[in-house]
Amino acid sequence: MSILIRNGYVVYGENLEVIKADVLIQGNRIVEVKKGINESADTVIDATGKVVSPGFVNLHTHSPMGLLRGLADDLPLMEWLEKHIWPREAKLTREHIKVGAYLGALEMIKTGTTTFLDMYFQMDAVAEATLEAGLRGYLSYGMIDLGDPERTEKELNEALREMKAIEGLNSDRVHFVFGPHAPYTCSLALLKEVRKLADEHGKLITIHVAETMAELGKIQERYGKSPVILLDEIGFLGSDVIIAHGVWLDSRDIQILARNGVTVAHNPGSNMKLASGVMPLQRLLNAGVNVGLGTDGSASNNNLDMVEEMKLAALLHKVHNLDPTVADAKTVFRMATLNGAKALRLNAGVIKPGYLADVVIFNFNQPHLRPINDVVSHIVYSANGNDVETTIVDGKILMLDREVLTLDEEKILQKVEEAIESLS
Amino acid sequence: MSILIRNGYVVYGENLEVIKADVLIQGNRIVEVKKGINESADTVIDATGKVVSPGFVNLHTHSPMGLLRGLADDLPLMEWLEKHIWPREAKLTREHIKVGAYLGALEMIKTGTTTFLDMYFQMDAVAEATLEAGLRGYLSYGMIDLGDPERTEKELNEALREMKAIEGLNSDRVHFVFGPHAPYTCSLALLKEVRKLADEHGKLITIHVAETMAELGKIQERYGKSPVILLDEIGFLGSDVIIAHGVWLDSRDIQILARNGVTVAHNPGSNMKLASGVMPLQRLLNAGVNVGLGTDGSASNNNLDMVEEMKLAALLHKVHNLDPTVADAKTVFRMATLNGAKALRLNAGVIKPGYLADVVIFNFNQPHLRPINDVVSHIVYSANGNDVETTIVDGKILMLDREVLTLDEEKILQKVEEAIESLS
Ligand SMILES: [Zn+2]
Ligand SMILES: [Zn+2]
Repeated sequence: MSILIRNGYVVYGENLEVIKADVLIQGNRIVEVKKGINESADTVIDATGKVVSPGFVNLHTHSPMGLLRGLADDLPLMEWLEKHIWPREAKLTREHIKVGAYLGALEMIKTGTTTFLDMYFQMDAVAEATLEAGLRGYLSYGMIDLGDPERTEKELNEALREMKAIEGLNSDRVHFVFGPHAPYTCSLALLKEVRKLADEHGKLITIHVAETMAELGKIQERYGKSPVILLDEIGFLGSDVIIAHGVWLDSRDIQILARNGVTVAHNPGSNMKLASGVMPLQRLLNAGVNVGLGTDGSASNNNLDMVEEMKLAALLHKVHNLDPTVADAKTVFRMATLNGAKALRLNAGVIKPGYLADVVIFNFNQPHLRPINDVVSHIVYSANGNDVETTIVDGKILMLDREVLTLDEEKILQKVEEAIESLS
Repeated sequence: MSILIRNGYVVYGENLEVIKADVLIQGNRIVEVKKGINESADTVIDATGKVVSPGFVNLHTHSPMGLLRGLADDLPLMEWLEKHIWPREAKLTREHIKVGAYLGALEMIKTGTTTFLDMYFQMDAVAEATLEAGLRGYLSYGMIDLGDPERTEKELNEALREMKAIEGLNSDRVHFVFGPHAPYTCSLALLKEVRKLADEHGKLITIHVAETMAELGKIQERYGKSPVILLDEIGFLGSDVIIAHGVWLDSRDIQILARNGVTVAHNPGSNMKLASGVMPLQRLLNAGVNVGLGTDGSASNNNLDMVEEMKLAALLHKVHNLDPTVADAKTVFRMATLNGAKALRLNAGVIKPGYLADVVIFNFNQPHLRPINDVVSHIVYSANGNDVETTIVDGKILMLDREVLTLDEEKILQKVEEAIESLS
């Protein structure tokens, strides 16, 4: 299988240089990027006036939560969780979660996300939906033991069960990740065991850390230190760890994250909507910490649109610092693409020969993207996810001209409405 | 001419109650909203699974600035203005501005804006484009005299010339508004004369006020008081005045705005991108000040998407106040619709019999807008402007199923590229 994308503006390489060129994909790789490629291909796409960009890497989400989109907004966090989210999640069956995963996959394909790092439950069901959709999924079961040793074991067993089920699918595109929920919902015993298992099985770890001030208070009360120091002291941190949020970090925390090569998944939309706070992006970047971008779940965003998320990131940090030069367009674009891929040890997020063919095409033949004064600026500041017209993952076309080829959109939307009826 | 919109979810009345109903438009008015309307109409639109919403009122923009979109981002304000924006604006001819106005009109129609309050120059050209597009335009010539009496007179004369030209078009849809640029760029003589002329001609006034800390410092140095107190003391303020931004307001300023019935046009995207600061939305609303929503120009946003702007407003104030309950979905939706209409003394912004037929239809048959748990929440938090499928202004269909009927989109995008070539 080969694809030739002709005559687009290509966001090229790590420096996001914009060049007019053709892009040739053979198998699951980008093999050539230059003007006037003279080769035949199974599929030829005319991208005149359009933009060829790396696909986006959503580094933190709970993809099946689309089912709960809009069910409870504008509420204090604990009321939101305890009265609205948790009671409904308790009712979710494996079938619900699979439908939610299909919905999330549709949304991601239609807004240019090619890879996502997920945390939820019944992740083998999410893996099946991801495989069918054609996306790359890094899938973690969110473990919560609340300090109960019996639950610790149950949670670890469920994680290992899901790991085996996902490994049993035997795909390069779906991967199991260990996902202890957070230091305030997991015992130290669980966290230590996770570290051991991740080493043993060669898996990544993702965990919510320092999302809210309330969490900081709980950990301080329980352990007399910050969550990051706590995790460092038990040997939990490493370059295979991706912490979500990292809102409330002091300089010492930041140094620890940098020293351990930890990645932070920034979720500006969720942090703003839940009023969690503003994470110290500039200080993290200055310390050399790898920062990726995520949407968090659709109950706290309320969508999975990484293009919108880039704008939120850029704008939030400018106003928070009263400095329009921070979080510039290229910096947030890299967060949403190659920084995320790097965290996942994935050779993607860049348009360049040798990289995986995870590529999207933006339709720039629209008034809000003209004139084409600056392509990367337009993607970050002017575009939204609906402007993505074509999505390619692993050399396979998942959406062409807004039509999803791998999933039956109408049928899934129908099933979503049915699922919701059975939930209420 | 009559239009019957069948079977949609209607965002009804001032309380934004969502009901399943038909909407009947006759002439330029909404005449009936109820289930199963049994009347024939010239045009029948099936809105099954879709949402019928009031069109959006962009209460502060510089619509022709789309031409400069993305030309200069991530820069300090004065460098942005002096090195990039002003030198290019100096080159803009009437023809450029008309092309820019067409581009802006296309963008607004395609993202559900039905009315806009504009400030730029050559506004008679903007008026012509607005008329052709079918939008409602409240158009002000931005006067700047920098304290030079000769320029004062020149600016007032140009405003009066444009007023007459716009009035000469004899349309209910285009209106002249007086637009002194700001207290720091206009002399007191100019501001006082504007107040007199607005009274004499029965026109509204719009002006930038308290956008940046730098402006506050300049006014303090020159006059020893805040911009709002200055304007109050010269008798400038009134219920016919719409101030743009209002970022740096203290409690006394807010009381003055409330007492005078002044409207504030909030521009979260621009305030964030230029790092101007966060306006005191909660305190303004608590004081009873009417607050509308605007995008500002596309050079500082970088689009005219009011749907995106609602999300920015809601999220910005939640995180700034560390309180997820502020700027709830309905509050920002009203800012973007009826509050704007109220400021312009326009009987629009509400779906209800008797109101002007400024109506848009959102396509909710999309994954990011499903399941339909909460329609207003979905518009504010999950949707973007591309989800608007049909735009109706004054009882006339401007866009149907994403196709703009009043303007030649392709030709305009072509002219935009030509205009840009002649500018660089
Ligand atoms: Zn999360
Ligand atoms: Zn402005």
